[in-house]
Amino acid sequence: MSDRKGPTTTHRSELVDLDAEQTFELDRRHVFHSWSAQAALAPMVITKAQGSHVWDGEGHRLLDFTSQLVFTNLGHQHPRVVSAVQEQAAHLCTVAPQHANAARSEAARLVASHTPEGLDKVFFTNGGADANEHAVRMARLHTGRPKVLSTYRSYHGGTQLAINLTGDPRRWPNDQAASGTVHFFGPYLYRSAFHATTQEEEGERALEHLAQVIALEGPGTIAAIVLESIPGTAGIMVPPPGYLSGVRELCDRHGILLVLDEVMAGFGRAGRWFACEHDAVVPDLLTFAKGVNSGYVPLGGVAISAEVAATFAERPYPGGLTYSGHPLACAAAVATIRTMEDDRVVEHAAALGEEVFAPGLEALRAEHEWIGDVRGTGAFWAVELVADRATREPLAPYVGTSPQLGAVVAACKRRGLLPLAAGNRIHLVPPLTTSATEVQEAIGILGEALGEAAATA
Amino acid sequence: MSDRKGPTTTHRSELVDLDAEQTFELDRRHVFHSWSAQAALAPMVITKAQGSHVWDGEGHRLLDFTSQLVFTNLGHQHPRVVSAVQEQAAHLCTVAPQHANAARSEAARLVASHTPEGLDKVFFTNGGADANEHAVRMARLHTGRPKVLSTYRSYHGGTQLAINLTGDPRRWPNDQAASGTVHFFGPYLYRSAFHATTQEEEGERALEHLAQVIALEGPGTIAAIVLESIPGTAGIMVPPPGYLSGVRELCDRHGILLVLDEVMAGFGRAGRWFACEHDAVVPDLLTFAKGVNSGYVPLGGVAISAEVAATFAERPYPGGLTYSGHPLACAAAVATIRTMEDDRVVEHAAALGEEVFAPGLEALRAEHEWIGDVRGTGAFWAVELVADRATREPLAPYVGTSPQLGAVVAACKRRGLLPLAAGNRIHLVPPLTTSATEVQEAIGILGEALGEAAATA
Repeated sequence: MSDRKGPTTTHRSELVDLDAEQTFELDRRHVFHSWSAQAALAPMVITKAQGSHVWDGEGHRLLDFTSQLVFTNLGHQHPRVVSAVQEQAAHLCTVAPQHANAARSEAARLVASHTPEGLDKVFFTNGGADANEHAVRMARLHTGRPKVLSTYRSYHGGTQLAINLTGDPRRWPNDQAASGTVHFFGPYLYRSAFHATTQEEEGERALEHLAQVIALEGPGTIAAIVLESIPGTAGIMVPPPGYLSGVRELCDRHGILLVLDEVMAGFGRAGRWFACEHDAVVPDLLTFAKGVNSGYVPLGGVAISAEVAATFAERPYPGGLTYSGHPLACAAAVATIRTMEDDRVVEHAAALGEEVFAPGLEALRAEHEWIGDVRGTGAFWAVELVADRATREPLAPYVGTSPQLGAVVAACKRRGLLPLAAGNRIHLVPPLTTSATEVQEAIGILGEALGEAAATA
Repeated sequence: MSDRKGPTTTHRSELVDLDAEQTFELDRRHVFHSWSAQAALAPMVITKAQGSHVWDGEGHRLLDFTSQLVFTNLGHQHPRVVSAVQEQAAHLCTVAPQHANAARSEAARLVASHTPEGLDKVFFTNGGADANEHAVRMARLHTGRPKVLSTYRSYHGGTQLAINLTGDPRRWPNDQAASGTVHFFGPYLYRSAFHATTQEEEGERALEHLAQVIALEGPGTIAAIVLESIPGTAGIMVPPPGYLSGVRELCDRHGILLVLDEVMAGFGRAGRWFACEHDAVVPDLLTFAKGVNSGYVPLGGVAISAEVAATFAERPYPGGLTYSGHPLACAAAVATIRTMEDDRVVEHAAALGEEVFAPGLEALRAEHEWIGDVRGTGAFWAVELVADRATREPLAPYVGTSPQLGAVVAACKRRGLLPLAAGNRIHLVPPLTTSATEVQEAIGILGEALGEAAATA
């Protein structure tokens, strides 16, 4: 046996050297994709990305108004985050969670410096799903209660408990009747479950509905209410002012913890560091992922109140994971947060929302019959397409897509815009660093695409 | 509003600049740790790591015989993996799972080239817990059956379903009676549940026990049996020859899927690419993480048989995650696997086991009364400590630790060895690239530490 001390091979580039065709061919042979029937898949190969753009396998440049899955908040290949990853890799790629290391300590400090008052402890996870799993566990153990309430039209992650929290069709094949999750309706004025006609009425009636659900489920059985501060994939339904603070009051009245899922809405997406700031609400637990490091390295986490943390001061917290607080992921978070501070990225996102998205999309709605509703804030916008403005009949069913939606997306792509399609909606969720000119360009392309698709429908 | 196109700040080092004291202080203020009561924690700061060594906050160098949490299979800061991370970071940090990219395609091809025959599709996750969650989901949907069997003395991850699969005390505070998980006894000759006295008898009786559990639970209700090919954290109980193939036969007889959890045992740890090769067993689903990329970037996955993949050819697989097949994590996997191939790392680990660990630890057992059992393979070894060799009374309880175990670990650390303590056991699980000399050094230190601890007990 050789008595080896290190690598025996000489240095060469380790970058994977496959062209787009080989990439596609190996993907179809060996990669099993999320949320998909595998046979018919034809994934777009991405060969390059920079700022707000990606390049496909044929060399076409596309404006990335998806931020991939709404996570590249600083855009692609931001030099400070790339440098941070490279420097941390050279210094110390990984240590186990039971030890301490500088990148993790600083990331925790920076996260806690931006989370709402009092959420000063951070439990790091690999992503949003396990962040929500652990938040629910903390809430159940803190309260000693079994049930968790969340809304229909929500997404909280793909693992078993997280998908049962979720209120969209992806839960259906995974439904576990005994998971302890109960769903209620959140505010969504355009398709109100409460026959409301104004935002104020929608907010009030949604709170009245939640109060009824709590009373009928039994307040003493409910550990937590888990809400996306702004439901994301389900439709970017910005809640009416006062709704979240009303939920906070209901929680306080009944000893229920408020868990706000800021996985998509947080870290500047909604024009604030966290979307709950719009209603000045402080949750007991706040979950995050995605924007925390622009998704450059997998990372998520739970920010924890002093009260919940105290529950686990002397009693062990029965949860963990191998890569909790991974140094490489934390180094990317440090660089991301510092860049967001230095470059005033959150303020830029807020201004994009107020000065570019809101007027631009309202103007588009005036022109296009298919646009039923436009809503959003910051760099977080949904355009809801309908077959009929009076009946509000969606242009695509709740599950799946439609030829019309497909035609809009295809026409966008041909013109150089990658939008995020979800049900009967087009979501425009670019990097927060996208310029006003690029947003105007994207809105222009969407308008042309709607015109083309409507003309041929 | 500025019409920004990119970063406005000038370049500087992005490396986090905290000394060990600051790192510790911020950790205690802001980091919530896995599996722990938070008040009494005093985590060791790790400031540097190289090959088989780490350096603590006081500058002491320690032989890392934990591989952190048994994942740095190529050791710390392997130059090829560091280069791969840096080059991929410069090229393309991240794309969403619905697209295709070169690093992911090549990683999937390489993983599939080493998994047992027929497991050619790879679903990438963030780690082992979600790999097991998704494997169970696939098995349930493929078979249409609800229950999943796993062993007592096992660990399958920290999320809700994974911790319910787990058969160690960490499940207790998370136990969900309706999770559909059922536990049985696996082979463990030293503390046989079957009153066996030889490995052969233990294997036969363990299979007979499993057959009875299947019959009494109802074969038609069982989707899968989930097993660590070699249970890891629970005690590195290498199964008797024929056990895993016997489980495979029971599964085939009853239409039950076999899920082998190779998160810890896989990627060379057990002296084979996958530990199931010891018994020439091919599972239906194989889960991995840790060693796949030495933990340099969070990554896990499920390797899927053609039969299970076919279930999701036309029917969508209802599961996914934002960072599935993350390019940076996949680039680290490509470099890790290529290095393991080029440097014959798996063969080296096998030789370490046969030529150094086995004789060295047997000699140690002859010298030290406290050593009740020694077992392992490759770079995957457990030394079980007992108060009495005749009664086999453990030197620490099943839950928690003891002054004697604490003394052994402290004496090891003072002498420059970081061992992994688990219950009444010391696990020696170094990087697979550790030299024979370093293994001999570690065994020597463990011997001295046992002597010192026993003398002062």
